Amino acid sequence: MSSISIIGTGNMARTIGALAIAGGNTVEVMGRDHSKSADLAKALGGGATTGEWGAVPAGDIVIVALLFDGVVPTVAHYGDALTGKVIVDISNPFNSTSDGLAHREVTSIAQEVAKVAPAGAGVVKGFNTVFRHVLENGRPDVFIAGDNAQAKASVEAFIKSLGMRPMDAGGLEMAHWLEGAGVLTMGLARHGVGGWDFALGVTELPA
Amino acid sequence: MSSISIIGTGNMARTIGALAIAGGNTVEVMGRDHSKSADLAKALGGGATTGEWGAVPAGDIVIVALLFDGVVPTVAHYGDALTGKVIVDISNPFNSTSDGLAHREVTSIAQEVAKVAPAGAGVVKGFNTVFRHVLENGRPDVFIAGDNAQAKASVEAFIKSLGMRPMDAGGLEMAHWLEGAGVLTMGLARHGVGGWDFALGVTELPA
Repeated sequence: MSSISIIGTGNMARTIGALAIAGGNTVEVMGRDHSKSADLAKALGGGATTGEWGAVPAGDIVIVALLFDGVVPTVAHYGDALTGKVIVDISNPFNSTSDGLAHREVTSIAQEVAKVAPAGAGVVKGFNTVFRHVLENGRPDVFIAGDNAQAKASVEAFIKSLGMRPMDAGGLEMAHWLEGAGVLTMGLARHGVGGWDFALGVTELPA
Repeated sequence: MSSISIIGTGNMARTIGALAIAGGNTVEVMGRDHSKSADLAKALGGGATTGEWGAVPAGDIVIVALLFDGVVPTVAHYGDALTGKVIVDISNPFNSTSDGLAHREVTSIAQEVAKVAPAGAGVVKGFNTVFRHVLENGRPDVFIAGDNAQAKASVEAFIKSLGMRPMDAGGLEMAHWLEGAGVLTMGLARHGVGGWDFALGVTELPA
């Protein structure tokens, strides 16, 4: 069982919160608007609680479920409140046409988060390659990347509690290519797959 | 049935050549060293022929099976000999540690190929996300990208003749993210999968 704090009250916060509860984890909701946090916690049930925006999260794993341009400022705002926490960046920093990244440099929101997070925090990228309704209705592979092995192990245990398979792509520099895999997934949805009911996954060779 | 010319005589040329023959396609081998071309054509069997380096390829689809830094110069060397051809770039421009791309710009070998190819050629990126032995022993999804719909349709028909599923990621700008998917696949092999017997693929939601 993991203890999870979710920063945000939008659709992705709701989906991951519901999965987390169903997987037997504890959930805290931290929204900028406390009434939205309370509404979401109530909707989630399972003993979900609320926390104040910017306060020390109750959870060991802090999932930042915000639009990509809010992630780094929010982690910076939380600052030392995140010391010792595992910070999970799930964002997709798409450009305006969703066929590339908003940043042209070889970086990622997760790598930028690591620059503003307190020294004791472990930053992990994950979940961004999966469309929300696939996360909700399927058991997709969840790709992750990060430099802190202990933080990554915590996130892997959480992913397994959701009945999904964590797939470690390597160090935090791989977060850029996970963001690229998000772009690729959009491209496939618009072209080769022609729909949204799929996820990128690992297919093993038959033995 | 497609007619395929393969530029190169290395392992990837051998693997794709053998698959192409097995799939009922005609194959021409074009190596810089004619004796190597002749050896490979003989080994492939199935009526495989050889062509001179730099001459007009016999095949409608020209697969450049060279190390990444040889691809653009070779297409430039062929020049107008490739007019009207479908040029397939299968390369992975990995950096020296194979955890990123050799180019830091948002480009790809395929996009650079398009800059030097004759106006009438259709450039398609494909096959780069799959390890060679997986291509040989499995039926992996083959991701492709390109701007020329007719060229892409030709490559899709060829991929289907191999018993594999073509997965169109979109326009040629997606070749950059397919190269990134190659990097991601390396990362998964070294970390989350812990081995080489897999490929990235599309996993559909259960109906």
